[in-house]
Amino acid sequence: MTRITVSEVGPRDGLQSIKPVLPLEVKQAWIKAEAEAGVPEIEVGSFVPPSLLPQMADTAELVRFAKSIPGLNVVALVPNARGAARAVEAGVHGMSIPFSMSESHSLSNVRKGHPAMLAEVAEVARIAREAGIHFAVGLSTAFGCTIEGAVPEATVVRLAAASAEAGVMEFSLSDTTGYADPAQVRRLIRAVRAEVGDKLTTLHLHNTRGLGLANALAGLDEGITTLDASLGGLGGCPYAPGASGNLVTEDLVLMLNSMGYDTGIDLEKLIAVRTILAEALPDEPLYGFTPDAGPMLDYKERIAG
Amino acid sequence: MTRITVSEVGPRDGLQSIKPVLPLEVKQAWIKAEAEAGVPEIEVGSFVPPSLLPQMADTAELVRFAKSIPGLNVVALVPNARGAARAVEAGVHGMSIPFSMSESHSLSNVRKGHPAMLAEVAEVARIAREAGIHFAVGLSTAFGCTIEGAVPEATVVRLAAASAEAGVMEFSLSDTTGYADPAQVRRLIRAVRAEVGDKLTTLHLHNTRGLGLANALAGLDEGITTLDASLGGLGGCPYAPGASGNLVTEDLVLMLNSMGYDTGIDLEKLIAVRTILAEALPDEPLYGFTPDAGPMLDYKERIAG
Repeated sequence: MTRITVSEVGPRDGLQSIKPVLPLEVKQAWIKAEAEAGVPEIEVGSFVPPSLLPQMADTAELVRFAKSIPGLNVVALVPNARGAARAVEAGVHGMSIPFSMSESHSLSNVRKGHPAMLAEVAEVARIAREAGIHFAVGLSTAFGCTIEGAVPEATVVRLAAASAEAGVMEFSLSDTTGYADPAQVRRLIRAVRAEVGDKLTTLHLHNTRGLGLANALAGLDEGITTLDASLGGLGGCPYAPGASGNLVTEDLVLMLNSMGYDTGIDLEKLIAVRTILAEALPDEPLYGFTPDAGPMLDYKERIAG
Repeated sequence: MTRITVSEVGPRDGLQSIKPVLPLEVKQAWIKAEAEAGVPEIEVGSFVPPSLLPQMADTAELVRFAKSIPGLNVVALVPNARGAARAVEAGVHGMSIPFSMSESHSLSNVRKGHPAMLAEVAEVARIAREAGIHFAVGLSTAFGCTIEGAVPEATVVRLAAASAEAGVMEFSLSDTTGYADPAQVRRLIRAVRAEVGDKLTTLHLHNTRGLGLANALAGLDEGITTLDASLGGLGGCPYAPGASGNLVTEDLVLMLNSMGYDTGIDLEKLIAVRTILAEALPDEPLYGFTPDAGPMLDYKERIAG
């Protein structure tokens, strides 16, 4: 069985896009329960300035907590070198920086153009290397941008190559905006792989237009081995009310397990974790089809191969 | 560009699973509007006894109406030879009969086991041949059954071969229960194709567990050329409240058009057709992500290739 890593990003990507601040104890219960369901990697938060994102203020405490869970890979997002230093201090196993392939998106989001971001990436790579910590770059808005529209594939390839040159060990292609279609996923993976090879391991997909799992399948066909997802698709989409945001972990795990991939995740235990979110965030919609329908009658036969 | 036929089954599969009876004029407006959006084929109803399904009582009138729309392929479902005779009389371009691969499902649904259904299929094939009308068999519950669980692939292959022997010209694999996963879709298409070749053209998918578009992608990879879908995913799923039923036409068309397939369908016009359903069926949920989020900013560039 091929091993596929499902990386839960809800505590970071999910929570940073909603208003309510989830208390530390609830985040801890969530992380613990997902790890117990077999989720091997969790992005527990982001080392942004707490004044900017109060939801992420307890990230260092969460890193310490999550590291006490045996076998769990504890990762965090860092926006820049300063965040990377904080992440190292907190003791993350891995960190990743989002690098927006759309320059206007990058300027509006972190007030840095591509050259400045490349310098930042190089600096974070240096910090990671010195600390002996895993470091990845998320090539965000790689499939299109809500400001610029199309993002040229050549730009993504060029910036990925430059990042690899700067010492980046691993790459994720991020469909920040829910723009990806499966043909584009295949094309872009091939193009980026031609430059950085197997350093491209990960897809970060959103389900904004319902294409999330189809895009995941396209990625699996191209040899992607890590897929980000968020429990209950938490986060929503700020510019399209009612539209789901992140890929839903529950549906992704159903698909992967049924197809015979080895995720190590117990689907029923995973679905039970939703209760924690439903109780703590009664006004946030939770997405996903599998939690309503339940696994197929022959699900256990399927996963037994 | 590869041509893919999107076949709208909402007026049949969608309406037969909900309680309200949609008035004839509304059905006509719906069919007309979808045809004007470029949908090339519509399953307008089912020739079941009206006493069983009052929603389908006006199918013959709908066939006559739909045939007045230039270029539209007008198809209907027939449960048996008696229905087929009525369909021929009404003047359908094509008809299809569902043949449940799960014998318990077949017995509970139409009180016929596999041998009796094969005889019925042969009789319908004869009626179709004599009338010069296209005839397809929908191999339903082909991916699993809510009564039996797993349905052996060997059974599906055997019954498809026997149906071809009996004169069937075209086959659809139907995921009646929302059980399919993409690996299984690929396996089963290959296995059935090994027996009936290119007569297997179509996938009928449900989105019960959110895997609909991923399964569609798997089918496209295997050379499937027709995909059934229902506007707004109309129909829901009787055994899992809140779970969506049919593949959503709007999301499917977004995916196909963005990928560069030629569907001939104008997505924005298609989305506008939802208003007809929303007004006529205010209590039925309409599914789909694309209608909320809208197409991507660079959608027109994508479809221009």
